Amino acid sequence: MLKGDKVTLLAKQKILDLLKAEQEYVSGEYICQQLQVSRTAVWKIIEILRKDGYEIEARSRTGYRLVSTPDVLDPAVWLTDLRVSCIGRNSSYHKVLGSTNEKAKELARQRVPEGTVIITEEQTQGKGRLGRAWQCPPKAGLCFSVILYPTVNPMEVAQCTMLAAVAVVRALHNTLGIQAQVKWPNDVYINDCKVCGILAEMTAEADRVKYLVLGIGININQSQADFAAAISTATSLSIQRGHQVSRVQVLKAVLEELDALYLQWQQQGFAPLKDMWRQTALWFGEPVLVSGLQRTWEGILEDIDDSGALILRLPEGGRKTFYSGEVSLRLRKT
Amino acid sequence: MLKGDKVTLLAKQKILDLLKAEQEYVSGEYICQQLQVSRTAVWKIIEILRKDGYEIEARSRTGYRLVSTPDVLDPAVWLTDLRVSCIGRNSSYHKVLGSTNEKAKELARQRVPEGTVIITEEQTQGKGRLGRAWQCPPKAGLCFSVILYPTVNPMEVAQCTMLAAVAVVRALHNTLGIQAQVKWPNDVYINDCKVCGILAEMTAEADRVKYLVLGIGININQSQADFAAAISTATSLSIQRGHQVSRVQVLKAVLEELDALYLQWQQQGFAPLKDMWRQTALWFGEPVLVSGLQRTWEGILEDIDDSGALILRLPEGGRKTFYSGEVSLRLRKT
Repeated sequence: MLKGDKVTLLAKQKILDLLKAEQEYVSGEYICQQLQVSRTAVWKIIEILRKDGYEIEARSRTGYRLVSTPDVLDPAVWLTDLRVSCIGRNSSYHKVLGSTNEKAKELARQRVPEGTVIITEEQTQGKGRLGRAWQCPPKAGLCFSVILYPTVNPMEVAQCTMLAAVAVVRALHNTLGIQAQVKWPNDVYINDCKVCGILAEMTAEADRVKYLVLGIGININQSQADFAAAISTATSLSIQRGHQVSRVQVLKAVLEELDALYLQWQQQGFAPLKDMWRQTALWFGEPVLVSGLQRTWEGILEDIDDSGALILRLPEGGRKTFYSGEVSLRLRKT
Repeated sequence: MLKGDKVTLLAKQKILDLLKAEQEYVSGEYICQQLQVSRTAVWKIIEILRKDGYEIEARSRTGYRLVSTPDVLDPAVWLTDLRVSCIGRNSSYHKVLGSTNEKAKELARQRVPEGTVIITEEQTQGKGRLGRAWQCPPKAGLCFSVILYPTVNPMEVAQCTMLAAVAVVRALHNTLGIQAQVKWPNDVYINDCKVCGILAEMTAEADRVKYLVLGIGININQSQADFAAAISTATSLSIQRGHQVSRVQVLKAVLEELDALYLQWQQQGFAPLKDMWRQTALWFGEPVLVSGLQRTWEGILEDIDDSGALILRLPEGGRKTFYSGEVSLRLRKT
């Protein structure tokens, strides 16, 4: 973030705080005093906020009043009262971006602060796992990436992606009362339909991670028609809820859960997370297919082990442990 | 490699092949016929080879004779009769390079062929594990990196670095009769002194590797005075052997062993490699310290497990498994 941008962001936040604190008009003079800037400067920032989509009424000799807040992902909107210790305290906001993960990797190489969130209104070249495309249309999708520098072995990174899936499930429950489930290792489903995908990318030595980027994509306000026929098992929060959902509200909730769980993971390891993950696990006890790197296996989805690996009970008896793979229901297309 | 460079490399290799095939003079006319180029072109290539350090005698109306071959790492020197199926078939050669691993990562992102070797006469900013400096002085050191795209989980990458250490041990045994040992996970020692370090760096998703770069640094012709006092436990092949050692000979032997073991690992997994690794393991049964990511443990170095992790027998009984860490002898500085 350039220095000028940072000053503007702070001024925007401060003015929004002042306007939000009052239902009624706030005098221009009062804003000037609080920010210690000129009337012209205040007016300029108000104009920027209006361009961002804020509806702000101005009445001469009375002041300014906030009429409505847009559902934009500008940190000025969501950073103010975010309750986090690390994740989201620093951010990089874009109107359009090829891929938040690519931008995040670029910033991670420059060693920006841990917890930096890269967020965009629209992502044009998003990728899911295995290089698959991930759509993120403006206003409907929510796509962001978080930069982390965990002191862990590369084999522990899968745990952090499972942590992120749990954070999304908890956020959806707290904000919208939706009971979502986690599909191993890190997809989030509602009623057997995918609502969120997570793509973790790391650079590491053989035994320690240099940086980890968690890319999270959540379908918020897509209609069923927005999904191509090929992804008929996709859903969005608005489809599930029957009304438009605030992207900012979901974003804030996910960042707060992510922040708390990441801290807990660092302090207590995977054990508490494993329990949380299992409580909302999809398809446990059901017949599934697991596509591994080499071949596909059939069996009953039994459990996960202490490292987060998937345990499949095989038809001929015995169990197989998977560290990677793609799970699908045996009798249905997923 | 630029197209012109590739043509020159091929011409150099062809001329060297012709000269090496004969103890005596090879006529310029014969060389022209074989390469289907002009006398002037042959003469130009001969001049390039001389600049590279080849001593080539020219006698009018008789031809050219190869008197001596320099110990340079030019692929023209070592690629000709290299017996490999993958590793070393493609290469990127430099007189000076900051770091072969950095160059390798850059090339891996461009998806150059698997097995591409990046090699330099002199490395100015080499890094070992944990960002430590790794010296590679011209003529004395041998530093190269290999680009691999293994279809494995990030947690299996440690096995590939152990594989590389075994390849170096086998190469030193075959070419120089030296019995080196492997220090967990992937250092190579001779008489309790370090002769080779390996730095593996990967980029990966949580469950699959995108690319892996193996950086291998071997001390070849350093004298004891070349090592700083701080690394008094370092040694070189020439110190151990009492005479200068051909870097090209060592390089070829390591690439051939690496190629064979990498193929075996992909086909048969870690089991055969584990046995090879254990046969030359350093300090098994001895009291050691293991510095983990968080703290240091004391115990008897007992074994490695099926995934390559280190098993330490603790003083109070019981065992601890390490996936990362640094091993040192308990009663000595290492």
